[in-house]
Amino acid sequence: MEDVTPFRSAEQRLADRAAKRAAVLRAAVRMFNEKGFFATSLDDVAASLGVSKRTIYHYLSSKDQVLLECLTIGLEQLLEAAAQARAEPGTGRDRLAKFLRRYAEINMNDFGRCVIRTGEEALSAESLPRYRAMKREIDGELRGLIAQAVEDGSIAPVDVKIAAFTVAGAINWPARWYKPDGAESPEKLAAEIVDLLLKGLDRPGEKHPV
Amino acid sequence: MEDVTPFRSAEQRLADRAAKRAAVLRAAVRMFNEKGFFATSLDDVAASLGVSKRTIYHYLSSKDQVLLECLTIGLEQLLEAAAQARAEPGTGRDRLAKFLRRYAEINMNDFGRCVIRTGEEALSAESLPRYRAMKREIDGELRGLIAQAVEDGSIAPVDVKIAAFTVAGAINWPARWYKPDGAESPEKLAAEIVDLLLKGLDRPGEKHPV
Repeated sequence: MEDVTPFRSAEQRLADRAAKRAAVLRAAVRMFNEKGFFATSLDDVAASLGVSKRTIYHYLSSKDQVLLECLTIGLEQLLEAAAQARAEPGTGRDRLAKFLRRYAEINMNDFGRCVIRTGEEALSAESLPRYRAMKREIDGELRGLIAQAVEDGSIAPVDVKIAAFTVAGAINWPARWYKPDGAESPEKLAAEIVDLLLKGLDRPGEKHPV
Repeated sequence: MEDVTPFRSAEQRLADRAAKRAAVLRAAVRMFNEKGFFATSLDDVAASLGVSKRTIYHYLSSKDQVLLECLTIGLEQLLEAAAQARAEPGTGRDRLAKFLRRYAEINMNDFGRCVIRTGEEALSAESLPRYRAMKREIDGELRGLIAQAVEDGSIAPVDVKIAAFTVAGAINWPARWYKPDGAESPEKLAAEIVDLLLKGLDRPGEKHPV
């Protein structure tokens, strides 16, 4: 049997801190999505966790930092999805399909919804450059995947920029209307939306298994 | 020669009032789009017109009313576009194409952009029902046009709800990224986006002139 000590190890304390910080971000992102960033105060977020605003400041320095962290979590999920899609075997169309499905799914989770629902005007001048840089990176990934599918001939020779805007719009939109308690799962909705979009990108007459 | 009187007729006064009210809305919608609704004050709007906030209150009762009027102008443009498309000859696909192109164009003008860029959290409890009712009406128009195109066989037998969300997302998105001073015209961008989307809705192997 292990020795039991009432004192937490440094590791336990770090893990505890990370868990509490994550809980603050989860509570905040849900409120931002529901009430909007401007109508949400850190007092509301603290109250929903049964703590004081001072406790929140122990983990995050300001409402702006809370927002930037929430957005970063969402954007990092998208970057990870792009990296995974790039590593997939198959055609450019296969990799694009993989990325778009995952992208649409992320846009229906709490942090992904926050990315789409938050306008740039909510960010401070200090946070905006980091946010924009991540957005640009994701846009670059999407364009890269479309360009590769055009190059290997697995989709039609579309205008990469227009195609990227079109599919991004379609898969971003659920962040505005998707209800987490809705009847359809994000996975099913994502697959259906992406199927329609990919059909629009296919070469004339070409058929692909769904 | 007509008699000239320094007194304006009742008609002239009404026209003058309407022109001033419209100028306030035009100035307001541009600021909402640029800075966001919450960061814009009626003082800013008044200053941009070289008048005082009191002058604005002569035409509109509150910032909430200004927003609701701006949104209503955008939403009425969409409803008009739907009515025009419904009256067109041709197939269901033709009418849908007509509506989608106009819809996408409107989303790149000042009032259309405001409709997309404004979250529901910006509206007061009194304004929200009217706004939602108009949004629902437009969504109904879009679904109706898709359903008719499915019915007359001019597009593939898609799920109407999913198709409506997909195309709405794609054509709403330019409201977030389109720069009025950009190189491409709204008409050209709208046509390119809608072509991609309609290709996604076409029956397998079918070809349509662009």
